[in-house]
Amino acid sequence: MDSQFRILGIAGSLRRQSFNRATLQEAVKLVPEGAVLEVFELEGSIPGFNQDEENNPPQKIVELKQKVREADAILFVTPEYNYSVPGVLKNAIDWASRPYGDNAFDGKPAAVMGASIGAIATARAQYHLRQMFVFLNMHAVNQPEVMIANAADKFDEQGNLTDETAKDLMRKLLEQLVKQAKKITG
Amino acid sequence: MDSQFRILGIAGSLRRQSFNRATLQEAVKLVPEGAVLEVFELEGSIPGFNQDEENNPPQKIVELKQKVREADAILFVTPEYNYSVPGVLKNAIDWASRPYGDNAFDGKPAAVMGASIGAIATARAQYHLRQMFVFLNMHAVNQPEVMIANAADKFDEQGNLTDETAKDLMRKLLEQLVKQAKKITG
Amino acid sequence: MDSQFRILGIAGSLRRQSFNRATLQEAVKLVPEGAVLEVFELEGSIPGFNQDEENNPPQKIVELKQKVREADAILFVTPEYNYSVPGVLKNAIDWASRPYGDNAFDGKPAAVMGASIGAIATARAQYHLRQMFVFLNMHAVNQPEVMIANAADKFDEQGNLTDETAKDLMRKLLEQLVKQAKKITG
Amino acid sequence: MDSQFRILGIAGSLRRQSFNRATLQEAVKLVPEGAVLEVFELEGSIPGFNQDEENNPPQKIVELKQKVREADAILFVTPEYNYSVPGVLKNAIDWASRPYGDNAFDGKPAAVMGASIGAIATARAQYHLRQMFVFLNMHAVNQPEVMIANAADKFDEQGNLTDETAKDLMRKLLEQLVKQAKKITG
Repeated sequence: MDSQFRILGIAGSLRRQSFNRATLQEAVKLVPEGAVLEVFELEGSIPGFNQDEENNPPQKIVELKQKVREADAILFVTPEYNYSVPGVLKNAIDWASRPYGDNAFDGKPAAVMGASIGAIATARAQYHLRQMFVFLNMHAVNQPEVMIANAADKFDEQGNLTDETAKDLMRKLLEQLVKQAKKITG
Repeated sequence: MDSQFRILGIAGSLRRQSFNRATLQEAVKLVPEGAVLEVFELEGSIPGFNQDEENNPPQKIVELKQKVREADAILFVTPEYNYSVPGVLKNAIDWASRPYGDNAFDGKPAAVMGASIGAIATARAQYHLRQMFVFLNMHAVNQPEVMIANAADKFDEQGNLTDETAKDLMRKLLEQLVKQAKKITG
Repeated sequence: MDSQFRILGIAGSLRRQSFNRATLQEAVKLVPEGAVLEVFELEGSIPGFNQDEENNPPQKIVELKQKVREADAILFVTPEYNYSVPGVLKNAIDWASRPYGDNAFDGKPAAVMGASIGAIATARAQYHLRQMFVFLNMHAVNQPEVMIANAADKFDEQGNLTDETAKDLMRKLLEQLVKQAKKITG
Repeated sequence: MDSQFRILGIAGSLRRQSFNRATLQEAVKLVPEGAVLEVFELEGSIPGFNQDEENNPPQKIVELKQKVREADAILFVTPEYNYSVPGVLKNAIDWASRPYGDNAFDGKPAAVMGASIGAIATARAQYHLRQMFVFLNMHAVNQPEVMIANAADKFDEQGNLTDETAKDLMRKLLEQLVKQAKKITG
């Protein structure tokens, strides 16, 4: 068990029926052998980051930072709100990257996925997230990019992803994440 | 009074001694004649946006949307966290832009400022914000750009901006905001 | 004739069968009454911009700058190469924006379209172009955005756009360009 | 000799006295032991990329692609024109990434530097370049970022960089490039 490759998955949505949370649940089933994917659920009650409080983060953030540190790699599954990363996800990142010198994401391998009912499929949010990685010092997998367009047609009523092309890309991205992470941190 | 041009100013930081909140306070004094700038204070207790709740936003967001609608233009004064817009500001924007068809920012003229202790001076956050404006349908002033670098050297102990070059740029940007807004919405 | 609203259209591709050049040709037919759209063809022989030569630009650039100045608005129709604006288009922009103080694009209203065989449909290139507009001081229409995905299915063998949804969006964007330009520069 | 780590350096400017070309020359002296940095000079006469000609690239591009392939890592030293990557550099990248399936940059480790007379110091160009790397499948070093501001004060009349802080950052970035490259491709 201890030798398993541990991925921490964070979805950037709080909506119960969120396609991105559903995508993350799907990802749990698609990790390569030897890896496990644990889901970290954000909550709406995480307060807005305030630098005055950065040394006393909410308990939820203490947990997030610990989980991030224990993970071998991070998977972000993000919706796109207003052509960028949701505030709720960005806020969690802001908390977990502080205070200065205590950035939990430092050096972590990462991968990004996103699902949307539109055609652009979270591309804009994903590139904003990738720009953050430069500062956070995260090592993101380039390809394949997982951008699930027209999501309303690709999940069944129970929230299962039914699109085999998307699943295949997800599988490949997760494989690539494990492979690249082992090179970078191994 | 009613004929005055009304600017609503929003700073993207919750920190008490924030250079960006101080910059916004300074902007209040620098608006051109015939204009007023009202400050809207974000709060840490605004919950993370949840689409399931978008028809029942918190009271603070109800107020924000009303203030945005009453304003002739919006001024954002944003720090840069992790090479992008702070989650706390993005979250407020996410709330106020929803539900679909009820985007409070629609059609509003806008200007952006930012202050930082570093050299890049919030540039990265400002361009992410500008990308959001495309979706929000906000009309942003191009120039001058106000990016106050090395902020620690440019404010006195009472939080007053002492840098005349920065003040002059702020004055010009606010003039330009009023001028351009009148053309676009007039 | 002189009272007509003049749009200058520039496509960012040199390929003969380019979907973007075809889109620009289509746009010529879709301009609102009272407007005309003239196409400016880039050439592969425009040399790479060299600041040492900025006071002696090639003849093609002299023409471009003059055409841009005579136009009431600019329409860019850009492919996406390597997740950004094609070098060939960027190079023409670099030339026409120089020397310092002689930026031909200064203050011009602008609109952006793009077509691609993929799903993301030049979105990434379009946002890079919009960031350039901040420096160039161009006033870009926000919406509708024209991103023609799966272009291979939407043009006939003669290069005519057959997709009515795309044409309708193009028509609306051109109307919006004229309308907004008249406000800003009128 | 054959066991040396080979970096290919490309500056995005054609100007003779370019601060970026000077920075690249400086980098030649700052590579860590066991590594060499070869400079590839772009030329103004490289024609604009035309997909119709992608199977018959100009001789200069044939050379570029070969040099890129032989290199263990690529260093881009880029000015910022109009808030993005110079057309002349983007055009070379466009050529060298084509035709489909023959992207010379595929899988290459990379680092980015830039110098400018302004304060933002090519940051905007560098993030556009990093977005291209996602498609090109290049593995860019995150940190340190080398953005040499106020370049006019930091080079002597012979074009030597005299700023020790900048040189130190360059040295660290080059070390990091070699170190990370060995992990990724080793």
